[in-house]
Amino acid sequence: MKRIFEPGAVAVIGVSAEGFGFGRGILLSLKTIGFNGALYPVNPRGGVIDGYVAYRSVEEIPGPIDLGIIAVPAKHVPAAIESCLSKGAAGVEILSSGFSETATSEGIALENEISRLAAKGIRIIGPNCFGVYNPRSGLTLLPGPDLSREPGPVAFISQSGGMTVDFAHIGKWRGIRFSTMVSFGNGVDLRETELLDYFGSDQDTGVIGLYVEGLRDGRSFFDTLKSVSSRKPVIICKGGKTDSGGKAAMSHTASAAGSSEVWNAVMRQCNAVPAADLDGLCDIALAFTSLPPGTYRGVSIIGGGGAIGVAAADAASLMNMKVPEFGDELKASIEPHLPRPGSSARNPVDVANPYVAPSSMKEILLNAARCREVDIQIVVQLLYHYKSLSILMPGAALEDVIPISEFADAFSLAVAETGKPVVLVLPEHKQELEALDIATVTRKARLLYAEKGIPVFGSVEQALYAIHAVSDYYGRLLSRASLTNRS
Amino acid sequence: MKRIFEPGAVAVIGVSAEGFGFGRGILLSLKTIGFNGALYPVNPRGGVIDGYVAYRSVEEIPGPIDLGIIAVPAKHVPAAIESCLSKGAAGVEILSSGFSETATSEGIALENEISRLAAKGIRIIGPNCFGVYNPRSGLTLLPGPDLSREPGPVAFISQSGGMTVDFAHIGKWRGIRFSTMVSFGNGVDLRETELLDYFGSDQDTGVIGLYVEGLRDGRSFFDTLKSVSSRKPVIICKGGKTDSGGKAAMSHTASAAGSSEVWNAVMRQCNAVPAADLDGLCDIALAFTSLPPGTYRGVSIIGGGGAIGVAAADAASLMNMKVPEFGDELKASIEPHLPRPGSSARNPVDVANPYVAPSSMKEILLNAARCREVDIQIVVQLLYHYKSLSILMPGAALEDVIPISEFADAFSLAVAETGKPVVLVLPEHKQELEALDIATVTRKARLLYAEKGIPVFGSVEQALYAIHAVSDYYGRLLSRASLTNRS
Repeated sequence: MKRIFEPGAVAVIGVSAEGFGFGRGILLSLKTIGFNGALYPVNPRGGVIDGYVAYRSVEEIPGPIDLGIIAVPAKHVPAAIESCLSKGAAGVEILSSGFSETATSEGIALENEISRLAAKGIRIIGPNCFGVYNPRSGLTLLPGPDLSREPGPVAFISQSGGMTVDFAHIGKWRGIRFSTMVSFGNGVDLRETELLDYFGSDQDTGVIGLYVEGLRDGRSFFDTLKSVSSRKPVIICKGGKTDSGGKAAMSHTASAAGSSEVWNAVMRQCNAVPAADLDGLCDIALAFTSLPPGTYRGVSIIGGGGAIGVAAADAASLMNMKVPEFGDELKASIEPHLPRPGSSARNPVDVANPYVAPSSMKEILLNAARCREVDIQIVVQLLYHYKSLSILMPGAALEDVIPISEFADAFSLAVAETGKPVVLVLPEHKQELEALDIATVTRKARLLYAEKGIPVFGSVEQALYAIHAVSDYYGRLLSRASLTNRS
Repeated sequence: MKRIFEPGAVAVIGVSAEGFGFGRGILLSLKTIGFNGALYPVNPRGGVIDGYVAYRSVEEIPGPIDLGIIAVPAKHVPAAIESCLSKGAAGVEILSSGFSETATSEGIALENEISRLAAKGIRIIGPNCFGVYNPRSGLTLLPGPDLSREPGPVAFISQSGGMTVDFAHIGKWRGIRFSTMVSFGNGVDLRETELLDYFGSDQDTGVIGLYVEGLRDGRSFFDTLKSVSSRKPVIICKGGKTDSGGKAAMSHTASAAGSSEVWNAVMRQCNAVPAADLDGLCDIALAFTSLPPGTYRGVSIIGGGGAIGVAAADAASLMNMKVPEFGDELKASIEPHLPRPGSSARNPVDVANPYVAPSSMKEILLNAARCREVDIQIVVQLLYHYKSLSILMPGAALEDVIPISEFADAFSLAVAETGKPVVLVLPEHKQELEALDIATVTRKARLLYAEKGIPVFGSVEQALYAIHAVSDYYGRLLSRASLTNRS
C-alpha cells in the first residue's frame, strides 16, 4: 500500500494535450500540488504536455513505475492495467467510469474483466473514482491542486469521489488534516474492509472516516469494524438509507444499500460513530482530532443573546447532555466580568452584548470551569456585530477592532488552567457582498483558534452534535473495557 | 400601531455622549440607516450628541413625538414612560433590562409598575428587547445601522432581541425582505397574540415568523394562530422545548415554556409551520416568499456527484417526498446534454463534473420537468470547483470563468417555460482565507439568482426541509378548504 499511497513514480494514462479531461486534470493537479515523485503522462501521439514528456505507451516509460493513474475510455482500461502490471506497478487507480454503475451488460463485463486482472498481482483502486490523496507524497485527487500538504491523523475511505474531494477541501479550512484519503468508487478490488483494516493498523492514522453505500462482504466488514473501533474511532456516513436513496446508490456505485434498522443496530454493536451527512462527518472528525479522549456530559455555554442559550440548552437536552446550573457563589464570581445591562451569570451565560473583552472572557471561562459538572465549554462569538460597530464608529479597520489574537490567547489559557476544553462557535450571520471584511476576520479567527487547538463550529447544535459523538464513543469504549477487566 | 412602526418623530431617552451604550447605539443606528423622521436624543446634561441637539428632558422636546425609545437604567424607566405618555406618544420601546428576567423582587415590582402605565393609554414594546425594524420608516434594531431599506412580505415577532437582529441580518443577504420586525422581550404589553393578530390583517405582510419561549394566554394565542394561519403562513420557532431549554428561557425572558408534546399537537391543529431553529426559520421564510403557493411532492435533483444525489434521495424520502424515476424516453432526452464520462440521466441526475454549460443545464431542466411527477427542481452547484480550474489554468479571473449571469438566465427561463420552480443549492465547501474570490462569486450568484426569483440554500437537506414546510402548509390548507366546501 505504501508504494500506492506514496509512489516514487506515477504514469498518467490517457492525457489529452488539450481540453480538461480527467487525465489532464489529474496531471495538472499533481503538478500544481508539487507531487514528490516522477510524473509520466501517456498519450499515443507522444509530444510534450504541460511541460512533461508524453510517452506513447506505458512500456516506453524509461524508469519503473509504482502507480498507474488510468483515465482512458472504459473499453481501453483492461489493456492499460495489463501494461501497468507488466511494468511492475504496485497498483492502479482508475478514474474512468462506464462500468457496472451504468447497469449495461457491456459495463458489467468490463468490470468483471478488471476484477480478474487484479488477481494477477496488481492492486486496483476504482474504477469510477477520483483517486487517492496523500499529503506526504503529494498524490492528490481529481481535481485537488491546492489541497493541504500538511499531513494529519484522519484517514478517509469513500465509495464516493465527490464526497472525498468535498471533505478534503472542507478539511483544509476547518483544520482537519489527513493521513490518506482513498476514493474507491465501484471498488472492484481494494475497498471498505481491507482499507479499514489497513488504516486500523496505520501508525499515522488516529481517526478513520468512511462513506459507504453498500458493502461487499458484510460479515467480514463488521468484524473488522468492531476490531478497529476498539482501537480508534471509525466515523461512518451511510448513503442509501432509504428506498429512494438506495436506488440512487445503485446508479451511483452499483451498491445494494441494505436496511436502515439493521445498519443502525450493527453500528451500535461495533461502537462505530454514525454521521448523518458530510457536514456531520466534518464536525465529528474535527471534534475527535481536537478534543482529548474522554466523556463530555456537562457543558457550559457562554454566548451573547438569550435565545442562543435557550436553543443550546434545548439541543443539549435532546442529546442527553447537561447544562448544569451554577451555584450562587459561582454566579457571583462570574457577574463582575459581565457587561451591563441584560447579562446573566446562569448557565447558559448570556454576555448580553457581543463586545466582551478577551480578559473578561477568560475570567468567565475560568470561573465557569469551577463547576464540577462542567466537562467542556462552548463560546458563541457573533463577530458580525463588530461590523455594526465599525459602521457606527468609522475609522479603524474591522481587523483592528476585533481582538481575535487576544481571544485565541484567552481561550487557550483557559484550557491550560482548567484542563477543560473550550470549543468555539462562529456563526456567519452576515454574508452580503459588502461584508467580505467580516468573512476575512472570521477566517483569520478560525486559523488563530485552530493553532491553539480550539475547534470552531458553525452553530451550537453542530458543536454539541460533534461533542456528543466523541463522548458517546469513549463512553462505550470505557464501559466495554471495564466489562472486559471484570470478566 | 402605524404611529409606532412608522413614527414621524422619535425621542431616544438615555443617550450618553460617550461610550457605546444602548441609547447611543440606537441613536447612531437610526442616523446611519437614514431614519425618515425627526430624532430627539434626551440627556440630562443637554448639549449636542452625534450632530443632534440633546434635550434635558422629554418635556423640553419642541415638537410632538410618536415613539419613545427608552434606554435608561431600569429604575428610571417608569418616569420615562410617564414623560412619553404626557407628551402624547403612541408608544415606547424599552431596550433597558433589569426587570422580571432577573427574578429579583425589585425587578418584578418594576415590571408590574410598567404594566400599570400601559393601561393609561400608551403601548409598550419590551422591556429587555432590541426594538422594532421597519424598512419603510427606517426604524431599526439595536444594532442595525445597515439593514435593508427595501420592504418585503415577512413580519417577525420575537421574544428574543438577539434572534431578531440575527434574522434581520441573515435576511438581508439571503433575499428575505421584511414588512416589520418586533422584538418584544419580556412583553409587558404588546406581545405574541396581539402582534400576530395585527400582522394577520396587515396588507403588507404575507408571511409571519414568530419566536416564542412562553405564552401569556395560550387559549387566545391558539385561537388567533388558527385564524391567521388560515389566511397566511405563520412560521413558529419555539425556544425552551426541553427542561434545560425551559430553565434557560426563564432567565432569558421570564417565560414558562410548556411541554413539547402538547405544543407540537397544537401547532399541527392550527396549521402553524414549525421551524427547528433560526436557520430553519430563515430557510422556510425564504421558501414561502420565493415559491408559488402549492404542494410539492415530487422533486428532481440535478447535481455533480453521485453521493449528493444519494443523500438528497435519502433526505427526500425521510420527508415523504418523492424523487420519481425518469422513464427511458426522458433519460434519453437528457443524456445528450450531460458531460461524459461518469454522468447519469436518472433522477437524481448526476452531471458528473461541475463545469456544465448554462445552455446544457437549461436543457436538462426543461427535459426533467417533463416528468409529470416532478413538481419542483433542485440544482446543486459546486462552484468551488471552478477555483481548481482557475488554479490549473491560470489567466482569467474566477468571475470571468463562472457564467453566473448565464446560469441565472437559464434557471429563470426553465421556470418560465415549465411552470415548475427551480431552487438552487450553493454549498460553500471552500472557505480558506485564500478563497475569498470564490466567496465573492458565490455571493454575486446568490444576488443574481434572487433577482430572478430563484432561492438559494446551503445544502440539499435544507432546501428539501424548506420546500417540505411550504408544501405541508398548503396541503393542509387545501384539504381543510375542501372539507369546509363539502360540509
